[in-house]
Amino acid sequence: MAHVSPSFSATIRVRLEDTPGAFARLASAIGEAGGSLGAIDIVRVERTTKIRDVTVSAADEEHLHEIAEAVRSVEGVEVLRVSDRTFLVHLGGKLEIATRVPLKTRDDLSMAYTPGVARVSEAIADDPHAAWNLTIKKNTVAVVSDGTAVLGLGDIGPEAAMPVMEGKAVLFKEFGGVDAWPLCLATKDPDEIVAVCKAVAPGFGGINLEDISAPRCFEIEARLREELDIPVFHDDQHGTAIVVLAALVNALKVVGKELAEARIVMTGVGAAGIATADVLLAAGAGKIVGCDHEGAIHRGRPGLPPHKAAFAERTNPDNERGSADEVLAGADVFVGLSVPGAITRVGVERMAPDAVVFAMANPTPEIAPEAIEGLAAVIATGRSDYPNQINNVLAFPGVFRGALDVRATTITPAMEVAAAHAIAAIIPEDELGPEYVVPSVFNRDVAPAVAAAVAAAAEADGVARLGR
Amino acid sequence: MAHVSPSFSATIRVRLEDTPGAFARLASAIGEAGGSLGAIDIVRVERTTKIRDVTVSAADEEHLHEIAEAVRSVEGVEVLRVSDRTFLVHLGGKLEIATRVPLKTRDDLSMAYTPGVARVSEAIADDPHAAWNLTIKKNTVAVVSDGTAVLGLGDIGPEAAMPVMEGKAVLFKEFGGVDAWPLCLATKDPDEIVAVCKAVAPGFGGINLEDISAPRCFEIEARLREELDIPVFHDDQHGTAIVVLAALVNALKVVGKELAEARIVMTGVGAAGIATADVLLAAGAGKIVGCDHEGAIHRGRPGLPPHKAAFAERTNPDNERGSADEVLAGADVFVGLSVPGAITRVGVERMAPDAVVFAMANPTPEIAPEAIEGLAAVIATGRSDYPNQINNVLAFPGVFRGALDVRATTITPAMEVAAAHAIAAIIPEDELGPEYVVPSVFNRDVAPAVAAAVAAAAEADGVARLGR
Repeated sequence: MAHVSPSFSATIRVRLEDTPGAFARLASAIGEAGGSLGAIDIVRVERTTKIRDVTVSAADEEHLHEIAEAVRSVEGVEVLRVSDRTFLVHLGGKLEIATRVPLKTRDDLSMAYTPGVARVSEAIADDPHAAWNLTIKKNTVAVVSDGTAVLGLGDIGPEAAMPVMEGKAVLFKEFGGVDAWPLCLATKDPDEIVAVCKAVAPGFGGINLEDISAPRCFEIEARLREELDIPVFHDDQHGTAIVVLAALVNALKVVGKELAEARIVMTGVGAAGIATADVLLAAGAGKIVGCDHEGAIHRGRPGLPPHKAAFAERTNPDNERGSADEVLAGADVFVGLSVPGAITRVGVERMAPDAVVFAMANPTPEIAPEAIEGLAAVIATGRSDYPNQINNVLAFPGVFRGALDVRATTITPAMEVAAAHAIAAIIPEDELGPEYVVPSVFNRDVAPAVAAAVAAAAEADGVARLGR
Repeated sequence: MAHVSPSFSATIRVRLEDTPGAFARLASAIGEAGGSLGAIDIVRVERTTKIRDVTVSAADEEHLHEIAEAVRSVEGVEVLRVSDRTFLVHLGGKLEIATRVPLKTRDDLSMAYTPGVARVSEAIADDPHAAWNLTIKKNTVAVVSDGTAVLGLGDIGPEAAMPVMEGKAVLFKEFGGVDAWPLCLATKDPDEIVAVCKAVAPGFGGINLEDISAPRCFEIEARLREELDIPVFHDDQHGTAIVVLAALVNALKVVGKELAEARIVMTGVGAAGIATADVLLAAGAGKIVGCDHEGAIHRGRPGLPPHKAAFAERTNPDNERGSADEVLAGADVFVGLSVPGAITRVGVERMAPDAVVFAMANPTPEIAPEAIEGLAAVIATGRSDYPNQINNVLAFPGVFRGALDVRATTITPAMEVAAAHAIAAIIPEDELGPEYVVPSVFNRDVAPAVAAAVAAAAEADGVARLGR
């Protein structure tokens, strides 16, 4: 059977003859087509037929069509409708606004709106800091994207980015209790993106930048961090970095190595790669060699763009050269944030004993876990169908929860490192193992632990406006 | 007793001796101080005392303090805390985000977020129009303000404008089922405001501009209407205009006059005044004379700014001159959207028999209703403590509900006129009377009726993307 997924599932509405064996024929047609049968509901009972909703999961969209065709060919079965469940989930969007105040009577209106609201507005005009208490700023984050680097899809535009940003907002609420609102922008101009974020900032307690392509994302984030007094956090960079560090802290415990001593080779020196290297360095990593498709980034390599030249200054202490596979020789850790095929089995074979391999290209890892089974001691990917999924969901809800709780002015490197250690510490030492270095995204202990660690680090760094 | 209002109310927590007459002394102290006693709750019973929460309403903030002092001086009463109820309502803001999809299992995550969401994003990238079905755009409006003309408070800035815009969003949801998100902007530059609105437009099905000072609001709205394919509606202009027309339609029925024949004098030729004149003209009004503090706006008046010069071209058919009181001679209708004292009793005395007077300056009307009782046949104000309150809440939720329902590209004059007639028609002819020409803001029939009328008018005007 193909690898079926609920993300490719459909509800097939069928009219089924009320004769013995009819449903069995339907079920076996789905099975023979490689589909997985899920919930079966009766919609309506007719004189000699029944209307049923049958849920099936498939491997991909094409497979879904094949299954529907297989069902159509079953004798005594009429297919009335095939509804893609993922699309059903998205109908009308995934967010709505809820009101936190009653508005049923004239008295309610006179307090929540005019004339009472005028006194609240005056209080904020007298002291803008009061907005943190008296408006939604207290708990609200803008999720800002220009739709240029969405998932693996690339530059698909702001409308098409909305479902992803809405999903992000759902995760913010579900795991962090943070109210996040998606703003997908019809501009790719860094100046305009900066201007929009600055303009809308009064109503938000933080800005989560998302899926903005490199190198523009560096400039946009740096300028906003400079000019705004609320946290600005490009999740593709810092969220990834935090979860990689968390997983690495635990993986190194499993293999009994120290971060300061470990030789780390990275592929991918884009937004996520650079941020990950920086947070690893902030956490005490000593030896990082980053590679792009031309091999190791080293000082003096001709034609390096500014962000890679700067990266070369703070990494690769021995100024190594060569392909990723070559510099992997003797490495303790591989961190892939690049593309399938960036390294090969030959490279992994050259690594030091008890190698740690994080192959996070999505959906196809740099190297397939199956290809290096037994060769690497710990393997992690970005996928949910292998052990050790590196997923930003572990970081961003708790990071912003913590930042909002103390009204932080920014997110410092120490706050990111603290978040990573909090994630790592969720797994008790005696449960740690090669296939369990990252907690589940559904582990409800993660976000509160991250929030507490981030808030404490903000206080220690002097960027908390409010003590807890 | 002073005119008390729940918008100036406090919950006073007191420790009261458990002796006969203690509560009576407390109650009479509140009464003697002019306060109105509301709910009384027992918080806790102690050995010889009780802790109670006592709600009192006052006339204003100063009065609240006086009442609290009066309570403090009562023997056997200890005041533990005085909490301003309006501020309590605003703690943490008035909105939050609710998720429309479950996110409890791995399957949920794989449909609402990665990997399933990628297919939805791809579908929108292929056909951006699909965003109307598959994202929150379908039901969402941005409430945009720069905080320059908030209520009667003027330019109080974006942070201080937030409570008002949040309140607006609460009303949108409560009455129209519309999800509205407040964006209060840290810029007053019309170019930047236009740029921000255009940038965020992909995620919204409409834009409600709010409390932006004239004349910038004209340019901003005009440019956005030109450049965006979603409705842009400056509520201070068009919302007011719609409700004034609705009230006038009914008032003229009460006095047995026709709109086309009525002589109408307006004071206030700002944003609301100009839009109101335009919608009255669109509805068939023939004779409107607008006045500012220098008197009637007439063609050839020296020093008129462009928007008033243009106004003079389409109003004042006989090019009358003089003060507001002077041009009121023989007028059937007065519409005040200006300042207290803009007209006097002398002016109203000059009006035609069965005069209609709408004095909507807030909170103090152009002329006090008490001053012209018996003189005018129908009186309306912007206040809730007189009959016939002209309140935009009657218009904007239904206008956007209707526009979103048919995915309108804009709001046309015919849609505004239709909205006004729908509001007017809520009151059955046999219930119409001098003190009942406007339905209550809490009349739940208004918004659906407005929405249906607006949607039908959008279809008739060819600006509906979608049939109902």
